[in-house]
Amino acid sequence: MKVVVLAGGLGGSRFARALAESLDPSDVTVVGNIGDDLEVAGLHVSPDLDTIVYTLAGVLDERRGWGRADETWNARAAAEEVGAETWFQLGDRDLGLHVARTEALRRGEPLSAVTAKLAQALGVGATVLPATDDRLRTWVVTPAGEFPFQEWFVRRGHRDEVDGVRFEGAAKARAAPGVLEALEAAELIAIAPSNPFLSIGPILAVAEIREALESRRVPALAVSPLIGGRAVRGPADRMLARLLGGTGPAQVTDCYKGLIDVLVIDEADADQDAGIQTIVTKTLMRDAPARRRLAEAVLGVPV
Amino acid sequence: MKVVVLAGGLGGSRFARALAESLDPSDVTVVGNIGDDLEVAGLHVSPDLDTIVYTLAGVLDERRGWGRADETWNARAAAEEVGAETWFQLGDRDLGLHVARTEALRRGEPLSAVTAKLAQALGVGATVLPATDDRLRTWVVTPAGEFPFQEWFVRRGHRDEVDGVRFEGAAKARAAPGVLEALEAAELIAIAPSNPFLSIGPILAVAEIREALESRRVPALAVSPLIGGRAVRGPADRMLARLLGGTGPAQVTDCYKGLIDVLVIDEADADQDAGIQTIVTKTLMRDAPARRRLAEAVLGVPV
Repeated sequence: MKVVVLAGGLGGSRFARALAESLDPSDVTVVGNIGDDLEVAGLHVSPDLDTIVYTLAGVLDERRGWGRADETWNARAAAEEVGAETWFQLGDRDLGLHVARTEALRRGEPLSAVTAKLAQALGVGATVLPATDDRLRTWVVTPAGEFPFQEWFVRRGHRDEVDGVRFEGAAKARAAPGVLEALEAAELIAIAPSNPFLSIGPILAVAEIREALESRRVPALAVSPLIGGRAVRGPADRMLARLLGGTGPAQVTDCYKGLIDVLVIDEADADQDAGIQTIVTKTLMRDAPARRRLAEAVLGVPV
Repeated sequence: MKVVVLAGGLGGSRFARALAESLDPSDVTVVGNIGDDLEVAGLHVSPDLDTIVYTLAGVLDERRGWGRADETWNARAAAEEVGAETWFQLGDRDLGLHVARTEALRRGEPLSAVTAKLAQALGVGATVLPATDDRLRTWVVTPAGEFPFQEWFVRRGHRDEVDGVRFEGAAKARAAPGVLEALEAAELIAIAPSNPFLSIGPILAVAEIREALESRRVPALAVSPLIGGRAVRGPADRMLARLLGGTGPAQVTDCYKGLIDVLVIDEADADQDAGIQTIVTKTLMRDAPARRRLAEAVLGVPV
């Protein structure tokens, strides 16, 4: 079964891994968020694409939830030694990937080609694509002002409440090569349990991708990022409460109106009205058996 | 005694260290070559300034002659793992310095201010300045074509014979803040035993610096980079032979016509005519006593 997954960071990556482990990985295409990409000293960093690739390659630092396992921090120590601002943490191996990516981008290769090459080099069988090769950046609107995503998330520790998000460049962004083709060929479209506003929002802000989902001829589902009304990680629950008035399945469904046929929710939320057909299962992907169970629930979805 | 040293890479750095160890380091200003600066994935790398700073800070890898001691190479391994071209070698700690420098340059700080800050942070007592804050790049003219310095030196292993050098940007380059002031205040100007064409040439290509040397009112000397007609390291001897017809003191003097009053030469070259007043001593700086001996010969120079 050919599946396209829209995914953000850790939750999205683990879900993509769940599907890639349960299917022929070459049948899985992961469309990753690039709204939180940033430049560090001119190096192009794609945190979500990297988390996806590292997770699928099995080299993610699982404890930290980002970056590579067996990482060292000598570059960072040297930068700090000379008084550099190091609010965005880069491990040595991670930095090597960013250098490789940036060199390729500077040679004129599009991000999609570079990402495919990096994933392949790390032995990833699934196809990993950025939503777009164009510049698209997430800005977070807060009572304290508007911030680039990483500034708000990392530097300010996402402590400011969010009144809205804005996707700079989205109006002109085209889907990256391969994305629309994969959606066209898909037998199932799955939105990963990622933050609907910050991880999936930037992907759906690309009009061609949103339209492809709206006009789909195959089933589409989303996996709720909530368990018992709480986000497993990150600020999704706070944002749902503030922006949509609640932290239940219904608010997640609201985020994907017209784009999904089914919402996959955790047993802890089974008593809530989702406003759409649901699949109830355990959604926490703490290990391989848990990933497998979720993948089977999703792939067996009767729509 | 206030001294200004014009210096390139390893030989120049060791000579600067020799003087900084023999004088009050705050009386020593090192004007470094930036003709071999380059961008790696957009990171600004200043190989000679770094060798100078690392040497003065006592953190240079003495065996390799460049980069930091106790270096690790995980970034490079990760870049190679994903198929990146890694002809220009960057260690992890070195990379951290480049990230710090590049961030500061991108904030709009001039290279001179950044270099001063890096040196200070690493505990260097001498003042280290780039010859210019403007873009100045060395191109090497060879029978196989014209190459940016690092392309010829590192990537092609400096195997092509050199027919000439060209300093892109030199015509418009101004001396970096502090350079002319240091030359004005100097009681001695010393050209380090660096490659006259590739290390000192770019510094002297800044018209304000050359003019300051031409109109000096204090003694100026150069230390020959040759021992027994051979360069201690690098292609200086091959270049002197091809471009000036010999590898003796006279050819070194030719490089600095009108700019020096004395040439410091090694005992091995004492039988050669230098065409200028000489000081004969041991010039190889293999350890601290050797550095001290050379510094004393230079600082005792009767002119």
